[in-house]
Amino acid sequence: MINLEKLQKISKSTSSKIVMLIFDGLGGLPHPDTGKTALETARTPYLDKLAEDSICGLSHPIGPGITPGSGPAHLALFGYNPMKYTIGRGILEALGINYDLKKTDVACRANFCTVDANGLVTDRRAGRIATEESSKLCENLSKIKVNGVKLSVVPVAEHRFVLVFHGGGLSSDLSDTDPQYEGLKPLKAKALSKEADSMAVLVNDFIEKAKGILANCHPANMLILRGFSQIPVIPHFTDIYKLKAAAIASYPMYLGLAKCVGMKAISCNSVKEEFNALTRVYNDYDFFFVHVKKTDTHGEDGNFKAKVEEIEKADSFVPKLTKLGPNVIVVTGDHSTPALLKGHSWHPTPLLIYSQYCRKDNVRLFRETDCASGALGNLPAVNIMPLAMANALKLNKYGA
Amino acid sequence: MINLEKLQKISKSTSSKIVMLIFDGLGGLPHPDTGKTALETARTPYLDKLAEDSICGLSHPIGPGITPGSGPAHLALFGYNPMKYTIGRGILEALGINYDLKKTDVACRANFCTVDANGLVTDRRAGRIATEESSKLCENLSKIKVNGVKLSVVPVAEHRFVLVFHGGGLSSDLSDTDPQYEGLKPLKAKALSKEADSMAVLVNDFIEKAKGILANCHPANMLILRGFSQIPVIPHFTDIYKLKAAAIASYPMYLGLAKCVGMKAISCNSVKEEFNALTRVYNDYDFFFVHVKKTDTHGEDGNFKAKVEEIEKADSFVPKLTKLGPNVIVVTGDHSTPALLKGHSWHPTPLLIYSQYCRKDNVRLFRETDCASGALGNLPAVNIMPLAMANALKLNKYGA
Repeated sequence: MINLEKLQKISKSTSSKIVMLIFDGLGGLPHPDTGKTALETARTPYLDKLAEDSICGLSHPIGPGITPGSGPAHLALFGYNPMKYTIGRGILEALGINYDLKKTDVACRANFCTVDANGLVTDRRAGRIATEESSKLCENLSKIKVNGVKLSVVPVAEHRFVLVFHGGGLSSDLSDTDPQYEGLKPLKAKALSKEADSMAVLVNDFIEKAKGILANCHPANMLILRGFSQIPVIPHFTDIYKLKAAAIASYPMYLGLAKCVGMKAISCNSVKEEFNALTRVYNDYDFFFVHVKKTDTHGEDGNFKAKVEEIEKADSFVPKLTKLGPNVIVVTGDHSTPALLKGHSWHPTPLLIYSQYCRKDNVRLFRETDCASGALGNLPAVNIMPLAMANALKLNKYGA
Repeated sequence: MINLEKLQKISKSTSSKIVMLIFDGLGGLPHPDTGKTALETARTPYLDKLAEDSICGLSHPIGPGITPGSGPAHLALFGYNPMKYTIGRGILEALGINYDLKKTDVACRANFCTVDANGLVTDRRAGRIATEESSKLCENLSKIKVNGVKLSVVPVAEHRFVLVFHGGGLSSDLSDTDPQYEGLKPLKAKALSKEADSMAVLVNDFIEKAKGILANCHPANMLILRGFSQIPVIPHFTDIYKLKAAAIASYPMYLGLAKCVGMKAISCNSVKEEFNALTRVYNDYDFFFVHVKKTDTHGEDGNFKAKVEEIEKADSFVPKLTKLGPNVIVVTGDHSTPALLKGHSWHPTPLLIYSQYCRKDNVRLFRETDCASGALGNLPAVNIMPLAMANALKLNKYGA
C-alpha cells in the first residue's frame, strides 16, 4: 500500500469525475429462512447492471475480523489509514450537528442519563428524552462557569449532546466518564497525561455543577461524557488527490467527517434528495461522496425487511447517477450491519469499481457471494481511493 | 510479508533451480472489438500448459491502483519492497546505457531543451534532436571544468544524456533543475541537506558554463537535470537468497538493474537469443531472470496486434525452458501495459508459479480473467521471490 505522501506526489488534477456511492452497513448475513443476505434478497437491477460492467470484490475497512465504527470506516473509504488517522467521538458528534469548531476547542460526546438514589446508572440514555426537553437542559448547563473557561452545551437529538470547552492550551487527553454499562456509577474524568491534569479538574468541576442542576430532572438527572477530542490534523482531499470534493448526505456526522478531510458538505433530507443534489452540483465538483444511511439503521434495528426495501429504493435512483456519465463509479458499504447481529460487523462488504478501464471481471450480480469471486479479491478499503484515482487517470507513474 | 533480513536467515543454498520469465508490460485491457486482452487473444499453448500445472494469480508491484515505473516494478519482482529500496533516475539511466558507474559517482538524467530569449523553456526535449547531434554537444560539455571535480557527459538517445560527477564525498541530495512544465525557467539545483551544499554550487556552476557553450546551439540551447542519485546500497541476491543469479535480457536498463542486486548480466539481442543463452548457461547458475521487453514496447506504442504476436513468439520458446527441467518456473509481468492506454498501467498482471510442490489450482489458461480466480489471489509482487524460494525447497522453517 502506498502512503498518502507518495500518493500526493503522483496525483494530478484532470476533468474526469468520480462518484463514490456508499450504502452504510451494506453487507449482511443470510436470513435463516432463505439463506440470503438483505442485498441478495433485494431486487437491484441497476446495481447488478453496473456490477456486470465493473471489477468487483469485497472490501474491509480495518482488517479481517475487525468491526469498525463509522469514523474509521469512512476514513478508510477516503483513503486514510484508520490506524494512523483518528477522529475522536466528540469531534465527530460536533461535526455531525454542524457545530463550528475551532482548532483549540475540546469537544466530547455527552449523554443525559438516569441514575438511582445510589448514583448508579439505570439508563444510559435517560429514556431517550425528547430533543426539546434535552435542549432546555442544555441551556441550563450552559450557564455553568468553570475556572474562567468558556463552554458550550449543544443539543444533538434525544439524550445526546455535545460539550465543548473553548480556549487555548486545553488538552483532550482524558478518560471517559461513561461507565459503558448500566448498574455502575459514572466515572471521574482522569488525565491520561501530565498536560491534561488541569483539564481533568475542570471537567470534573463541570460534572459536579451539572449534577446539582440536573438533580431534579429525572429521568435526565445525570450526564456521562466520552470521546474528549480535538480537530485532527488530516491532510485534505484537495492536497492529496487534487480533487474538488462534495459530500452529499442526510446525516450530519457523515457530512462532518467529510468536512474534516476538506469536502464541501451538501445536506439533504432523503436519498431521493441526495441523488437530485448530485445532479444539481455535478458540474461544480470532480469527486462526489453520496451516503445512504438507512441500510445501516435498519440493520442496527434488526429489521431485515426494511433493509431490503431501503436497498431497493436506493437502487431505483442509480440510473440518475449513471446518466451523469461519471468516469468512475465506486459502490460499496463502509462496513457490514447484519440484521441478524443488530449492529456493525467485521464481514467485508461488496465493492464495485466501474470505469472504462476497470478490466471488468465475471461478477454479474452485486451481492456478497458473487463479489467474493471478483477480481479485486478481499481489498482493504484504503486501496479504493487509489484505484478510483487510477481508473479516472488521475495518477502519474510511481518511479522511473 | 516477511522482510529481507528474516528471509536471509531462513534461506539456504541447494542444487534446485528457479527460472523467472518476465514479460515486460504483460497485462492489458480488452480490445474494444473483441473484449479480449492481448494475452487472451494470443495463442499460447505452452504457457497455458504450464498454467495448468501451476498455481496462478494476479500480481501487483506496488499496490492497488499504483502504476509503477520499470525500476520499482522489477525491484518488487526481485523481492525488494519498492517503497524502501529505490533506484534514482540518474542511476537507472546510466545503467541503461551500460555505463560503468562507481559507488562514489553521482549521476543525473539530463535533457537538452530549448529556451526563449527570456530563458523560459519552450521545449523540454529540444525538438528531440538527433542522437548524432546531441552526441557532439555532449562532447563539448565534457570539457567543462568545475572546481577540480571530474565529470562525464554521456549521450543516451535524442535529447537525453547522463551527467556523471566523479570523486569521493559527493552528495546526490539535490533538487531537480527540470521545471517539469514548459513556459517556466530551468530551476537552480538546491541542496536538500547540509552535506549537499558544495555539490549544489558545483552543479549550478556546471549549468552556467554549459549555458554559455549551448547559447548558439538552438534548439538545444539549454539543459535540464533530474534524478541526482548514487548506486543504492541494496542487499544482494547472493546474500539474501544464497542464489547464484543470472539476468538474461536485451535491454541495458534491466541488465543494469539486475547487476544492482548482484546478478550476472548476460546481454542478448533477441528473445530467441535469450532462450539460447538460458540453455547455454543453465549449469552455471541456480536463478535465471529472463526478460522479454517488446510486449511492453508494443503496448506503449498502442500496437495491440504486435503485442499479441510478441507474446505468441515468446510462448513458442517456452518448451526450450521447460525442457531444462527447472524446479521452479515463475512467469509474470512487471506491470501491465495496455495498448489501449499506450503506457504502463495499474492493472495487476497474470502470474503462474510452477513446481512439483506448488499445489496447483483450477486455472487452465494463462490469461488475466482466468488468473483472477487463481489460488494466489491478488498477490503483491514482493511475495513472488519467497514463494519461488519455498517451491524450490530453499527456505527453512521460520521459528521453532
